[in-house]
Parts: sequence; structure tokens; C-alpha cells
Amino acid sequence: MADDDDATASVLETNAAFYRAFTRGDIAAMRELWAEHAELLCFHPGGSLLRGRTEVLGAWEQILAAPPPLDMRCHEAQVHLHGEIAIVTCYEGNGAQAPHLAATNVFILEGGRWRMMHHHAGPLAQPARGPARARPNSLN
Amino acid sequence: MADDDDATASVLETNAAFYRAFTRGDIAAMRELWAEHAELLCFHPGGSLLRGRTEVLGAWEQILAAPPPLDMRCHEAQVHLHGEIAIVTCYEGNGAQAPHLAATNVFILEGGRWRMMHHHAGPLAQPARGPARARPNSLN
Repeated sequence: MADDDDATASVLETNAAFYRAFTRGDIAAMRELWAEHAELLCFHPGGSLLRGRTEVLGAWEQILAAPPPLDMRCHEAQVHLHGEIAIVTCYEGNGAQAPHLAATNVFILEGGRWRMMHHHAGPLAQPARGPARARPNSLN
Repeated sequence: MADDDDATASVLETNAAFYRAFTRGDIAAMRELWAEHAELLCFHPGGSLLRGRTEVLGAWEQILAAPPPLDMRCHEAQVHLHGEIAIVTCYEGNGAQAPHLAATNVFILEGGRWRMMHHHAGPLAQPARGPARARPNSLN
């Protein structure tokens, strides 16, 4: 189980790095945390499927270039490990506001490092409620 | 690659069974296609995370019990295989209408059978366009 604990911690760190790169508008960090070999996938809120490194990272480049960057915080991240694939479920919100998006982030172990391979975010019908849902669990 | 082709076909069949069970309001078929051992996860459109067999299948029981069932069709299903985990990205729509949801479905190989372990569906900002997007690829 120590291995699982290590894997969970590493996945959470990559997940946190994703929201940090988002908030800082750091395209280099964003490129670095996505998988190099697995095919990349992304559903932005309301958007159609982006597929492949060029489409997915090209869209991120546009999003991160548009000032001002959002203070995109991740709440209630839960890691679900399945061998060399990890699924993170979480909520996303802007700064101190209640989270307004639900997200599924999928990571893959590549060369000993957990990398993002799929991001799917969509709107919550109502902002997540209560103190547990308002507490971010990644540093941005 | 023949093994991958077989796996892809099996995953697509389970994915199609999911939309068939949805459309028919068939809770027995719905229960049967979800994983028995992996922890189940589900984000319905706009909803918070459902986790575990009781929560996920309980919600499906309520959805499927409410008449009339939707004619929920799956469009443009694409399988992304990663060992014993498969991710399906697709669009969902009601009957002949243009798809209005984007979905990520995650499957796991349990006892030689592909079972659903995560479903995340969220609204498209605008219905998917064009004939390619309007052609369902699962039989309902």
C-alpha cells in the first residue's frame, strides 16, 4: 500500500501542477505535465473533443494567453488508481468563489512520471455548497 | 493488434449496451454492465460526484424509473485503450436531435469482461453540428 500512497501523492502533485499552470498562465509548465506518448484528449466546458497534442496544447496556449488568467482552484480531488492509469475527480472554481465546474482528469504513468492525458470539465447546475466543498486542496 | 481490435469492439459493445439500457429504462441491464469490483464514479450533467455502487446505481434507478425514457443515442464513440482501462469519448443526444452532451465513459476489464466504472456527461455549448455528428454509432 506504500506504493499506492506514493502513486496517489504523485498524481495529486501533477493534478495540482495543472491548476497552478492554469492560474499562472504558464504554457511551458502546462506542456510539460501532459503525456508525451499517450494520445491527449480534452473536453473544455461546453466544447467539442480536442484530440492529439497539437489540438489540445494549442487550445491551452490560447486559453492561457488571454489575460487575466483565472485563479482556478481545485477542490475535493480524489484519486482512483488503476495500475498505470489514475482518474482524478474534483471540482473547479475561481479564487474564493464556490466551485462551478466538475472535472475528470485522467493521468498515465510514462517513464516513471504521472502525466495528464485527458481533461473533461463541465458546469455544475449550482455551485458546490458547504465548507467541505469550498476548501481547495491544491496550492495555486 | 488483433487483440486491440477485439478489445475495442468489446468496449464499444459495452458502451452501446449502456445507451441501450438508458433508452429502454432497463435497470437490470444497467446494473449488469457496471463494474463489480472497481469503485464506481458518475457525474451526471450539472451534478455532483456520485461514488460507489449504491450511490451510482441508486441514481440510475431513479433516472430510469421516470417515464418516458429518453431515446439516448451515442455519437462518434472513440475508444482509447490503455491496458485494462479503456476511455470512450462521445457525444449524446435524444433521438434524431443533434447531440447536446459530451461524455467520457471509462471501462475496466474485470474477469475478462469490459465493465463501466465512470460516466461523466456535460452539456455542449451548442448542439454538435454536421452530418458526421448527427450519425449515431450505437444501436438503441
